[in-house]
Amino acid sequence: MTPMEDARPIGIFDSGVGGLTVLDALTKRFPDESFIYLGDTARVPYGTKSARTVERYAIQVADCLLRRGVKGLVVACNTASALGLAALRVHCPVPVLGVIEPGCRVAAGLSTLRGAPGRVGVIATRSTVASGAYPHHLAMLDPRIHVVSLACPLFVPLVEEGWVEHPAVRLIVEETLAPLFSQHLDAMILGCTHYPVLKSVIARTMGPEVMLVDSSAAVAEDLGRYLGHVIAPAPPGTTRRLEFLVTDVADRFKETAQRFIGNVDDELVEMVDL
Amino acid sequence: MTPMEDARPIGIFDSGVGGLTVLDALTKRFPDESFIYLGDTARVPYGTKSARTVERYAIQVADCLLRRGVKGLVVACNTASALGLAALRVHCPVPVLGVIEPGCRVAAGLSTLRGAPGRVGVIATRSTVASGAYPHHLAMLDPRIHVVSLACPLFVPLVEEGWVEHPAVRLIVEETLAPLFSQHLDAMILGCTHYPVLKSVIARTMGPEVMLVDSSAAVAEDLGRYLGHVIAPAPPGTTRRLEFLVTDVADRFKETAQRFIGNVDDELVEMVDL
Repeated sequence: MTPMEDARPIGIFDSGVGGLTVLDALTKRFPDESFIYLGDTARVPYGTKSARTVERYAIQVADCLLRRGVKGLVVACNTASALGLAALRVHCPVPVLGVIEPGCRVAAGLSTLRGAPGRVGVIATRSTVASGAYPHHLAMLDPRIHVVSLACPLFVPLVEEGWVEHPAVRLIVEETLAPLFSQHLDAMILGCTHYPVLKSVIARTMGPEVMLVDSSAAVAEDLGRYLGHVIAPAPPGTTRRLEFLVTDVADRFKETAQRFIGNVDDELVEMVDL
Repeated sequence: MTPMEDARPIGIFDSGVGGLTVLDALTKRFPDESFIYLGDTARVPYGTKSARTVERYAIQVADCLLRRGVKGLVVACNTASALGLAALRVHCPVPVLGVIEPGCRVAAGLSTLRGAPGRVGVIATRSTVASGAYPHHLAMLDPRIHVVSLACPLFVPLVEEGWVEHPAVRLIVEETLAPLFSQHLDAMILGCTHYPVLKSVIARTMGPEVMLVDSSAAVAEDLGRYLGHVIAPAPPGTTRRLEFLVTDVADRFKETAQRFIGNVDDELVEMVDL
């Protein structure tokens, strides 16, 4: 039986800073809940690594957060969700949420707006695409949905380095997304937590006909369903605590995090060794 | 006393595939010597990581190669040379060569061709630039040399993803190198083993006045000096053996390695866990 109230924090993790877009959505939606965010900044990016390596890293990250007493775990990294979620759910004694299922649910809904069968694009890292996780989950929601997946391996480095509105970025986005232009997509999932940062360039490139799906709002909705059912919510009026763990020194994390969620206090960031 | 001949392999390591440009130069120059190349492909890139993390990783890699019985170690990664060479030399019971000193020697020579004091540019990863290793070694060779360093963090992902001759690459290279245009450089060191792949774009961007220094030839020259002195050479006519170790699954390594040194046989690539 789940207790009625639980002031312990919720763990949220990403390979680096991308998951901060999800943290931002969760802190706004759940003002009483405390969060511990872990960015595996020493080993970012996950999206170019193999399933075996990503799964191993995800378990190590989860163990670190479990030692800190989290009451639930949000896998804010699409690659870790795609390749490690099943193993994490077996491994962890607390509920584990990924970002793939929520994003698929929104995209499946949007894709039927113009009449079934809809056409959904998925852009993600190479490892997420190779996992087949998005087509799999979309097919479980509605097998008639036509899915087109595309790996965009340069988008993460561009965002990490702060290249967002430069002509070179537009050229790279245009050339990378070109295979999708003739696909008559209804919706397209931004299947990597970094991609929302490039949303305006991607939107201009794909045109107004293609609705873009940013999973962070959908993840917040899912967490809302968990809280009060499989995860006990914090007592109302709790003074929320936010902590950040990183696996490499904190300076660059704080610098990059500013682009996602604004200032992060020095004393709240701790370097951990997994 | 160093024995007269020694058939054991020489270890060479890089964070990923970039060091293969150095391996290529070494295998051509020393046809009798065997090499074990280790690419830390699960943890690439090193150039965005802190000194503490890079040093720890470098020691782990060296230990793995020492267990395989290497008679010497070439650190083909500029970031690991800049941040980890001193620790490696203390740690390893075999001679350790880096790529920074050889590149500096060539650049110092070139910079005096038009009369001292010469002006040398150094482009490298953010961590290599932050280490100050290049200005330090150039100053030891000739304190009158004026050094201008610049981090080019997007060049590694571009090369890893095979973007080499695209208009977007020219735009990124031009914008990144712009701070060097007014510096009247005599020579510029390509201070990262990935950068020689972008050499023609970089050369066009900087113009014919700036001589580009690719360290791999200089490293081969240094190894030649070590062999027969601090490292015993292989017996003449030895059938050379080349082996490859990677820390992530081998498929992508082989694919990317093709762009550097041509086909790599399946059975010669082994995945290791550090």
